[in-house]
Amino acid sequence: MASARLLGTELPGIPWEDRSDGCDDIVWRYSKNPIIPSDLIPSSNSIFNSAVVAYGDGFRGVFRCDDRRRMMQLHSGRSADGVDWEIEHERIRFVPAEGVEPTEWGYGYDPRVCFIEDRYYLTWCNSFAGWPTIGVATTHDFETYYQMENAFLPFNRNGVLFPRRIGGMFAMLSRPSDRGHTPFGEIYYSESPDMIHWGRHRLVMRPAAGWQATKVGAGPIPIETSEGWLVFYHGVLTSCNGFVYSMGAALLDLDEPRRVIARTEPYLLHPKELYERVGDVPNVIFPSAALTDAATGRIALYYGAADTVTCLAFCRLDEVVAFTRENSL
Amino acid sequence: MASARLLGTELPGIPWEDRSDGCDDIVWRYSKNPIIPSDLIPSSNSIFNSAVVAYGDGFRGVFRCDDRRRMMQLHSGRSADGVDWEIEHERIRFVPAEGVEPTEWGYGYDPRVCFIEDRYYLTWCNSFAGWPTIGVATTHDFETYYQMENAFLPFNRNGVLFPRRIGGMFAMLSRPSDRGHTPFGEIYYSESPDMIHWGRHRLVMRPAAGWQATKVGAGPIPIETSEGWLVFYHGVLTSCNGFVYSMGAALLDLDEPRRVIARTEPYLLHPKELYERVGDVPNVIFPSAALTDAATGRIALYYGAADTVTCLAFCRLDEVVAFTRENSL
Amino acid sequence: MASARLLGTELPGIPWEDRSDGCDDIVWRYSKNPIIPSDLIPSSNSIFNSAVVAYGDGFRGVFRCDDRRRMMQLHSGRSADGVDWEIEHERIRFVPAEGVEPTEWGYGYDPRVCFIEDRYYLTWCNSFAGWPTIGVATTHDFETYYQMENAFLPFNRNGVLFPRRIGGMFAMLSRPSDRGHTPFGEIYYSESPDMIHWGRHRLVMRPAAGWQATKVGAGPIPIETSEGWLVFYHGVLTSCNGFVYSMGAALLDLDEPRRVIARTEPYLLHPKELYERVGDVPNVIFPSAALTDAATGRIALYYGAADTVTCLAFCRLDEVVAFTRENSL
Amino acid sequence: MASARLLGTELPGIPWEDRSDGCDDIVWRYSKNPIIPSDLIPSSNSIFNSAVVAYGDGFRGVFRCDDRRRMMQLHSGRSADGVDWEIEHERIRFVPAEGVEPTEWGYGYDPRVCFIEDRYYLTWCNSFAGWPTIGVATTHDFETYYQMENAFLPFNRNGVLFPRRIGGMFAMLSRPSDRGHTPFGEIYYSESPDMIHWGRHRLVMRPAAGWQATKVGAGPIPIETSEGWLVFYHGVLTSCNGFVYSMGAALLDLDEPRRVIARTEPYLLHPKELYERVGDVPNVIFPSAALTDAATGRIALYYGAADTVTCLAFCRLDEVVAFTRENSL
Amino acid sequence: MASARLLGTELPGIPWEDRSDGCDDIVWRYSKNPIIPSDLIPSSNSIFNSAVVAYGDGFRGVFRCDDRRRMMQLHSGRSADGVDWEIEHERIRFVPAEGVEPTEWGYGYDPRVCFIEDRYYLTWCNSFAGWPTIGVATTHDFETYYQMENAFLPFNRNGVLFPRRIGGMFAMLSRPSDRGHTPFGEIYYSESPDMIHWGRHRLVMRPAAGWQATKVGAGPIPIETSEGWLVFYHGVLTSCNGFVYSMGAALLDLDEPRRVIARTEPYLLHPKELYERVGDVPNVIFPSAALTDAATGRIALYYGAADTVTCLAFCRLDEVVAFTRENSL
Amino acid sequence: MASARLLGTELPGIPWEDRSDGCDDIVWRYSKNPIIPSDLIPSSNSIFNSAVVAYGDGFRGVFRCDDRRRMMQLHSGRSADGVDWEIEHERIRFVPAEGVEPTEWGYGYDPRVCFIEDRYYLTWCNSFAGWPTIGVATTHDFETYYQMENAFLPFNRNGVLFPRRIGGMFAMLSRPSDRGHTPFGEIYYSESPDMIHWGRHRLVMRPAAGWQATKVGAGPIPIETSEGWLVFYHGVLTSCNGFVYSMGAALLDLDEPRRVIARTEPYLLHPKELYERVGDVPNVIFPSAALTDAATGRIALYYGAADTVTCLAFCRLDEVVAFTRENSL
Repeated sequence: MASARLLGTELPGIPWEDRSDGCDDIVWRYSKNPIIPSDLIPSSNSIFNSAVVAYGDGFRGVFRCDDRRRMMQLHSGRSADGVDWEIEHERIRFVPAEGVEPTEWGYGYDPRVCFIEDRYYLTWCNSFAGWPTIGVATTHDFETYYQMENAFLPFNRNGVLFPRRIGGMFAMLSRPSDRGHTPFGEIYYSESPDMIHWGRHRLVMRPAAGWQATKVGAGPIPIETSEGWLVFYHGVLTSCNGFVYSMGAALLDLDEPRRVIARTEPYLLHPKELYERVGDVPNVIFPSAALTDAATGRIALYYGAADTVTCLAFCRLDEVVAFTRENSL
Repeated sequence: MASARLLGTELPGIPWEDRSDGCDDIVWRYSKNPIIPSDLIPSSNSIFNSAVVAYGDGFRGVFRCDDRRRMMQLHSGRSADGVDWEIEHERIRFVPAEGVEPTEWGYGYDPRVCFIEDRYYLTWCNSFAGWPTIGVATTHDFETYYQMENAFLPFNRNGVLFPRRIGGMFAMLSRPSDRGHTPFGEIYYSESPDMIHWGRHRLVMRPAAGWQATKVGAGPIPIETSEGWLVFYHGVLTSCNGFVYSMGAALLDLDEPRRVIARTEPYLLHPKELYERVGDVPNVIFPSAALTDAATGRIALYYGAADTVTCLAFCRLDEVVAFTRENSL
Repeated sequence: MASARLLGTELPGIPWEDRSDGCDDIVWRYSKNPIIPSDLIPSSNSIFNSAVVAYGDGFRGVFRCDDRRRMMQLHSGRSADGVDWEIEHERIRFVPAEGVEPTEWGYGYDPRVCFIEDRYYLTWCNSFAGWPTIGVATTHDFETYYQMENAFLPFNRNGVLFPRRIGGMFAMLSRPSDRGHTPFGEIYYSESPDMIHWGRHRLVMRPAAGWQATKVGAGPIPIETSEGWLVFYHGVLTSCNGFVYSMGAALLDLDEPRRVIARTEPYLLHPKELYERVGDVPNVIFPSAALTDAATGRIALYYGAADTVTCLAFCRLDEVVAFTRENSL
Repeated sequence: MASARLLGTELPGIPWEDRSDGCDDIVWRYSKNPIIPSDLIPSSNSIFNSAVVAYGDGFRGVFRCDDRRRMMQLHSGRSADGVDWEIEHERIRFVPAEGVEPTEWGYGYDPRVCFIEDRYYLTWCNSFAGWPTIGVATTHDFETYYQMENAFLPFNRNGVLFPRRIGGMFAMLSRPSDRGHTPFGEIYYSESPDMIHWGRHRLVMRPAAGWQATKVGAGPIPIETSEGWLVFYHGVLTSCNGFVYSMGAALLDLDEPRRVIARTEPYLLHPKELYERVGDVPNVIFPSAALTDAATGRIALYYGAADTVTCLAFCRLDEVVAFTRENSL
Repeated sequence: MASARLLGTELPGIPWEDRSDGCDDIVWRYSKNPIIPSDLIPSSNSIFNSAVVAYGDGFRGVFRCDDRRRMMQLHSGRSADGVDWEIEHERIRFVPAEGVEPTEWGYGYDPRVCFIEDRYYLTWCNSFAGWPTIGVATTHDFETYYQMENAFLPFNRNGVLFPRRIGGMFAMLSRPSDRGHTPFGEIYYSESPDMIHWGRHRLVMRPAAGWQATKVGAGPIPIETSEGWLVFYHGVLTSCNGFVYSMGAALLDLDEPRRVIARTEPYLLHPKELYERVGDVPNVIFPSAALTDAATGRIALYYGAADTVTCLAFCRLDEVVAFTRENSL
Repeated sequence: MASARLLGTELPGIPWEDRSDGCDDIVWRYSKNPIIPSDLIPSSNSIFNSAVVAYGDGFRGVFRCDDRRRMMQLHSGRSADGVDWEIEHERIRFVPAEGVEPTEWGYGYDPRVCFIEDRYYLTWCNSFAGWPTIGVATTHDFETYYQMENAFLPFNRNGVLFPRRIGGMFAMLSRPSDRGHTPFGEIYYSESPDMIHWGRHRLVMRPAAGWQATKVGAGPIPIETSEGWLVFYHGVLTSCNGFVYSMGAALLDLDEPRRVIARTEPYLLHPKELYERVGDVPNVIFPSAALTDAATGRIALYYGAADTVTCLAFCRLDEVVAFTRENSL
């Protein structure tokens, strides 16, 4: 079989570090992790589960910065190399999009950023009547953000857009939830003609035995490849001492993303380093953004560690795809 | 203030029985309750929480008939007077609407029927990937039903359509839930341009102290009146021996139904008769359909009792509206 | 051993009905139960768990009347014979006692009334910062009630005063609880020099196997007898369908009521009649008041049934004491 | 297919009442239910879930009599016609079998009686270190009972013996449980060479959708028929107000009872009469014994109702077998 | 506004370390933390959540030393400089105060020590009938301790006395609880004429969004300042992996401490160091004692870390007061 | 009293390291812990809770290797010195023992290995109908394993055999459990004539206050000594952040092991090192195997740490026995 190819654009400046000698993991950690400490800005208790995209000749991002009240906030950030980041000290203040009535800000967390057609879409877990659902906003410049309608009724989390229309419709993955530390979770696919009204919902992935037995949720924006949409996702196992979050990958059909082509039975990344095992929530790896370079097949993954800091890991498309196919559920 | 008026059509054959002497309740029970016993058809364990509409010179309905496996099914029924019913022995077999892929039938319960423009819409709690959400179907004749897309992601119950477009959009109330005997529940408002894609979700009503402290959910199709949409709804209180379901009423703004004009602080109907207190689920009154006669202001309410049988109750529009305004939360 | 004697006063007009032929129960029900229906006053959903005392040549009482919002309220009532009752349509409005700051009324339920020295004391489960604790008030005439300080911190229920000082101190039984449908409960004894400050708390009774396995709580005001304080109390067993409330009796030492002399291993009264088994909370017998006649040893017990109606039962002191001693835990 | 035949003996005096006109239920109730009231003996609160066998020219049984402490006890009983019963006022006092050390009596409930080879075996839910497991005893005369070793470790309930050795081994069905109102339950098969040591455990039946969704447990002693072992069993569904117990039937392979030949998808009997719906535990039908007459194919079923009284129902073998096959899961 | 002043005495020997360069936290950790390791005495598993006061020209304290049975014990300790501590190897053996009956020792934990008028009062979480409540004792020399009556009924924790009478009454803060790892908790104020009888209970502080969303409890003895009583307190947030304890501060009115003048919306100290994040209970900071020097405004805070070791932190009164006012809820 | 003696054989090559200076713990850790890292074999996520025995002139073992799916597997291993281990990359594939029908492999964890008479017996927590129970297998060479019948019905864990028959019967300790992270657990004793049928179950040890308050379970194979069977066991305490596993010891009567002679009130080993406190499940010490040398009284203990790695600890028989007697519950 010919090797898997990224269908996106080239990104010569993608953050990168080769796999160290002796390591044969498919996904390997950046040696200088964490790249963003918990207190990079004065108000923050922790910075993690954040979104990053290439922008101009550098990078932009939206970051989850829990403040010292432990309230969950979204902040803009910028970086020349994708590794060293400057984050705005003030949280994003959303402007109502045209025709949308203003709402009071509650909280926002676990953002994803997706470029579609002519603008960036931000999705996140948004407070709606006090409950979590998927917030949606657009920006052209990461300075002004226009808040649109929430995509769904409560209760929902981990809304992740596809980077292009599929069958003429916008498309989103999400994970319906309950109101607390939800002990279950499946990934669903929904579509929309206008980014306001959503329907034709389909089940994509259920939990499965082992590291992903309690719940699964989509991570970075799906990556378009010659072999299908590559989705990195988190899976959760419940020990007698709480939730453990690991990372796996799945390939979804390009035209019908609800169809799972392959999905890793083993995890790809699991809490092991001290910064992943010790923090505000021990034993958490939560992937939330990816950069890709079509020229080399390199992928840089951003993930939150222990709900406290932001980290980087790397992999190569062909290896991930081969591993996913060969170790599929 | 002039008296409240029903904005709908006349229905001279509406089932009716005058309030008995000495009774000063706003809503009173039919003296021959229950009108449908639990075993009207051979396969049924219980018949309750059902939908009824005027049709031709008689009545049609969709009934929740739990069978003797205790599986929840929907059956069609017909009646000349709205009191004596014939129910089909076979459950409804839905035909996929055009462009909708067939799905395997799981279960269906707590139906509502709503006429909009040119056809009847059926909504119910439908099994979607094994979880409850709002199913939608259309029929012209109560013989052939075309199943459309589910309106929402799981988990949802008590989806109740408005009988006309509002601001050019279809509109639905629903009660997001969890996967079991949900111990919480609020009523939300959603709208759709096409009955497929839903958005602009708004919170309408939260639980409130007393009989409606645990959860609230919409009952019959909202009734259009000169004073606003009249919504009968169920409220649930949790005793040390489980849930108790009672009925109240609310008035919603005609143009912006998310705005509550008034809402009963006391209940209007509460389990008291033996057939409401004793059955498969003791202490349940669950209103699910209403008939109205614009000429007289008469309202006939259908409700399930003890999750076992179907009952009738009556009231007059002007009295209900006055009571709701005067005893509002 | 000489027969047990009541140490109180004579009450020739005590409600009474002899045990029916063939019945050999120690406590027997009134043949015309329930004596107070759930809707005796227009606003009430249910009337139960109420307090009664002899007053002048008749009787007075404080009644738990849950209204049609299902909010728990206290109402005054009067009766010539202790069986037929008139209840005020308006709830009691407490006047702050001297030196007590006014508080907002939340809810009140399960009252007890106790005459000590020169006035009547009312205790009940009172809303304190939204949580249940023991409220205290005084009255001379059952028209004006002076609300004193709450006796305890949250969370507490079933505060029952002794009818005289013991060792120079006021004395109360109570049942510390949690915030919901508490699944545990023991009876404690506390004393006070001034009816404001309470201390020297002692454990009196824990739950015991069988009908009283989940929790126990004092019922009517303790009855002073030659054999000790006679305390009727409720015990709760948890079935797979919820709580079942029955009634037993205990004898406490006259001088040190924390010492239990005897306590019924079997129950004395258990839900069996339809009005005890069916209602807002099925399977509840909740004793809350007693009248006694020292001349005859007659005792009339008032109890709530199914959290819905008020009932009467009868017994003779000597028989209850003998049974309690002979069937003690 | 030839009609199903009972492989047991004739029992001309089997209690019997024909199906009433208009009734087409496979299993029908005795018109004079309940046959044993809750207070047949002075000490009892309730009498239910009991075992009955033919004995001499009459009948003997072991009865669950919860006393007025609500402690669960076993009592012997006798009857000439299987309908009118005399029950011993004193509970059974077990004598340790030879080589078994005496243990303190805790509680016993839900007995079954089974004749094997030369004696009657009694199994029941027995207190072991305070936890429920399966107790075993033998008797020849229903006067002296020899208590053997408990069959299993805690936690277990509903141990039901087969009436003959299978493959040379004693055989038992049971339902492993937890320590409380277990919300799960499957039927297992175990065998023993000596009625002391048990092994080769096999899963027989899991819960299934509908009335048997929460748990299932064997009822009467399996009935040997030409079509396999006929097992009546209870299934439990969980409503928002607690457990509902109904009855179904299964056919197990004669030589390998772990193999299920057929099993009713609908229930055969479901709480419907007031004595089944109202009692200490509402909505319970619990079958625990059966009598059979090989000459006529008549079966008389004894079941507990509402955990309060004992009832009778009837059916014919050929009809039950046909129904079970035609309505199998 | 003039700067805040401590109203207490001077304490030149207060433990102290200046804020390190580059640190701009209001409260900063001692660089040699933890000051007391988990095994300072042979029997101890962990030493934390302890009380310290100035005494003579040195310091005395009462320490929570969980032994290697993991039983919670109280030990006396002494130190010349407040940093290096000697702890008695034997636990405190309380002597009943005059008129108090001896009780069996159960457990004691989370002590506070408060000097009032002429003696030291020790309060702690004491076993009462096996449940937690507030124990009280006095000492003059930290050698003999006289145990008084428990202040409250079960269930209570974190009883913290004020260092002088207020309005002529002794005063205490406490946090009513349940019997386990209580998932809720508010601070109440109570008063007493005699340190035996307690009453006039008032709510002071509820939980608030963020780091203090689950519960709050008072820490060190309130510090009297020109701006009000300064109370350091713990707040708890529940993650999917358990409780996280952080520290904030509040100012209470000098004359009516139930009135909250200001209260930190952000935390002042949050688990971040390895010794706070890793231990018997990860992610716990629990402040329990403070020393103050009126001459300089210096405050030394003692806190337990990870329920394992004892630590020190420092701050200045004027900075804490200013921060609390400027960042108040 | 004469010093305790090991009744087993000599093992000159037992792994050993003397207690370090200044340490006076009864059980001390190996200075090079962990001896087996989490990723010793390519497929493993973690290696812990494993069984080791002397074999020939070296050692053999069965290891719990959770793979990168987090599925629990059993692997064989070998070592020359008991410290450096080679583990097979492939999991054990069991061969059905004669007369046992093959079953599908589910999962296996927490193995113990015991030599009895002429072969090695392996017991472990085995998947049976999807639930945990005690699996049993034999091997002569640690290459071929013959799987026998499961010892018990679900639900059970920590089945630990005695190394010889007692009273002519095989004997096993086990801990009945529920289906999840069981919040309770006691040790029971069972016996069998044939290693297939088990009976005569007896309670041996309940939880006790402190570090062993939630549950207790046997660890290594009981060690025969002149003073009784020495059983190292795990005890669990529940903090607000989950379970904490420590280790204690008990002495059981040689002839009647159900009789506990002594049992440590304090723990012997408690999570303290970073590799015990941080890992997939923080704060876990789980002893599962022991080697003994009768000549010197040396004992080497293998234990899992943090459900992640395998560790060694050492002690001397006479010291452990003396400590257990002197610090007994």
